Amino acid sequence: MNRTFASCAAINSDANVHEVIDRNFEQQRGAPTAAVRIGIIGGGQLSTMTARAAHALGCRVTVLEKDPHSPGALLLPGVIIGDWADPAVLAGMASQVDVLTFENEFVDAGALQILEEAGHAVFPTSACLAVTQDKLRQKEALVGAGLAVPRFCAVASPEDIVGAGTQFGWPVVLKTRRNGYDGKGNATVSSAMAANAAWNGLGGDRNALYVEAYFPFSRELAVIVTRGRNGEIATYPVVETFQRDHVCHTVSAPAAIAPELAVRAANLARQAVAAVGAIGTFGVEMFLSTAGDIAINELAPRVHNSGHYTIEACECSQFENHVRAVVGWPLGSPRMLAPAAVMVNLLGTGTAPGRPLGLEHALAVRGARVHLYGKTTSGSGRKMGHVTALGDSTGDARTAAEEAAGRISFENR
Amino acid sequence: MNRTFASCAAINSDANVHEVIDRNFEQQRGAPTAAVRIGIIGGGQLSTMTARAAHALGCRVTVLEKDPHSPGALLLPGVIIGDWADPAVLAGMASQVDVLTFENEFVDAGALQILEEAGHAVFPTSACLAVTQDKLRQKEALVGAGLAVPRFCAVASPEDIVGAGTQFGWPVVLKTRRNGYDGKGNATVSSAMAANAAWNGLGGDRNALYVEAYFPFSRELAVIVTRGRNGEIATYPVVETFQRDHVCHTVSAPAAIAPELAVRAANLARQAVAAVGAIGTFGVEMFLSTAGDIAINELAPRVHNSGHYTIEACECSQFENHVRAVVGWPLGSPRMLAPAAVMVNLLGTGTAPGRPLGLEHALAVRGARVHLYGKTTSGSGRKMGHVTALGDSTGDARTAAEEAAGRISFENR
Repeated sequence: MNRTFASCAAINSDANVHEVIDRNFEQQRGAPTAAVRIGIIGGGQLSTMTARAAHALGCRVTVLEKDPHSPGALLLPGVIIGDWADPAVLAGMASQVDVLTFENEFVDAGALQILEEAGHAVFPTSACLAVTQDKLRQKEALVGAGLAVPRFCAVASPEDIVGAGTQFGWPVVLKTRRNGYDGKGNATVSSAMAANAAWNGLGGDRNALYVEAYFPFSRELAVIVTRGRNGEIATYPVVETFQRDHVCHTVSAPAAIAPELAVRAANLARQAVAAVGAIGTFGVEMFLSTAGDIAINELAPRVHNSGHYTIEACECSQFENHVRAVVGWPLGSPRMLAPAAVMVNLLGTGTAPGRPLGLEHALAVRGARVHLYGKTTSGSGRKMGHVTALGDSTGDARTAAEEAAGRISFENR
Repeated sequence: MNRTFASCAAINSDANVHEVIDRNFEQQRGAPTAAVRIGIIGGGQLSTMTARAAHALGCRVTVLEKDPHSPGALLLPGVIIGDWADPAVLAGMASQVDVLTFENEFVDAGALQILEEAGHAVFPTSACLAVTQDKLRQKEALVGAGLAVPRFCAVASPEDIVGAGTQFGWPVVLKTRRNGYDGKGNATVSSAMAANAAWNGLGGDRNALYVEAYFPFSRELAVIVTRGRNGEIATYPVVETFQRDHVCHTVSAPAAIAPELAVRAANLARQAVAAVGAIGTFGVEMFLSTAGDIAINELAPRVHNSGHYTIEACECSQFENHVRAVVGWPLGSPRMLAPAAVMVNLLGTGTAPGRPLGLEHALAVRGARVHLYGKTTSGSGRKMGHVTALGDSTGDARTAAEEAAGRISFENR
């Protein structure tokens, strides 16, 4: 153990100071514990929402995160400030917990595989992460399982983009295979003339890219699926997601679609997570065409923004079910407690301290459930919180959620 | 600040080590924060459940607690390990937060008054705490407001107990004015002959005692009431509580009583918290006689075991409303989301590590919501967790909650 932390110190002495403090802190506070200890790689809001569910079940949580001002580092007692790209840091964390999981898909799957080979429990597994974090391999796995996705192909040059456009028809969507999110790493290419610029824009010379056919969707759907270590599956309701500037803006649960479509979407989502060997909670994003065709857009191998509504709206939230799944406990029910729920994201509008303005007015909106992530800095489009409202109808829920969300802004000076 | 902590060190060097570590920890992790900072005196499960609600609203929480193995110390990042009876420790905490509150009523009201006089916000106020933590003064305040309580009188000797028994009729209940809970500090005195033994049993020579007439109740009711800084009131449903060995065993919400009785009980609870100048969430325990008379048993100036069901069953929990009240935000709705809810406490049966046995079986019970407090040691009758179930009927909810609770035990070797 000391060796591990000494090796961290050689790389980042600041991080080491934090770790030693955290570890002293924990040793002094904590008796030898009978509690299940969960390690979460990544300290964003997904880590704190997961940790709250874990704490309520008597678990201990340790978060590994570079940023000492992240929600996880600020709001949780067990924090290792360090770089998850550093195998020694990961090994140090693994030695302190019973099971490791992650709240973002940007962790190196190879590093996790080393932990697994050393006997540590990691869920989702490194093999699952390796497939899902690479969108090209993810699509290949889905196609391999016979599931519908937009047509796609790898591209190694601007010429390949032109070839794909000729084959699929224009426009096509050029994407980075890894590390894209919220529209980052995506570019719509409308014609052969735009291929060079798109290639350069996404750094094609250094980033692996691929092309997808444009799917003429009428709606975007999502399903949260939790899959347990024994293969048990909890499927949450099919929801409709509404993006603004490529960022999830609102989620409406359940989606106002024909029951037959909902059944198909749910089945597709279940098959998709099984196809990648998922364990834990996954978000499955789908496209619905006007003709009623459903194709998988992408899987996120983690709790997902489209499932935040489950905290209030479902018997067991996506976060609690993730904890249950990775620990190996039976899953809770994804049943909704109200006929409808709407979630609205609270996004920053500029770089500034994260002070929420208007919170007291938002809290006065009947039925609105406000969540703030405690971020100390807002950024343009940065997810700072969300509001969920339940209702007897989607309209009721939307009215309350939008009203409350509209009353909150983040200081922007 | 350094002076404050230096003075702590003079009294308790261990505590000081923890404080310095916590403070370094916070300083290193935390940027100057725009978040509302809440200090909670006491680190039991009520602190962690309150903190989870506060964190979800973007607040920071600091807990002050002697026991480094308490839930608050183990599960929260901001902890001061120290003695709340020490004014310097309280002052140190007050300097770090925007508002102070407490999760038990055993804090010295005089020490809180000093903080108020120094300009710190403390809710409930020291004046309210002084009245409610002394059950004799509490009863005097309720009677002064014209509210029904069992007859009572102060006693200064065993002879006074006999006098009370003669006046009220036997049996009477002898109680300590302060620091009683879960049946501790109470003794039923069945006749004049038992007065001496009861007096000695409760340490009458060193503890201030009083006597209450025995109230021949058919049921015990409770109401959670939150009162905001502006006097706004949220009244939760009237529930029925069931004790076992003087400890709350189960809570059924709403109580199966005539609507007229429920209205009277709710009104009485509202008037009671107003009578003591409550700010924050209070638990009001009441007796109901077969004749339909309702009398107040006692007020707890804090979130209360009879309100744990509100986490899942109500739109806004007693914990979130406590946070809203003490910060000065509008209150949330206490409306129930299901027709019925039943909560069952999980109690320890002996002194042992707090390892829960059978948790995985309990989690398999459909509809049961399991809460474990993360205590590292169980004790006979110690509250280790609770289970809540919602249902279309009380019977449904009770079946699920009892089934799940019955599957969990705590290691007892």
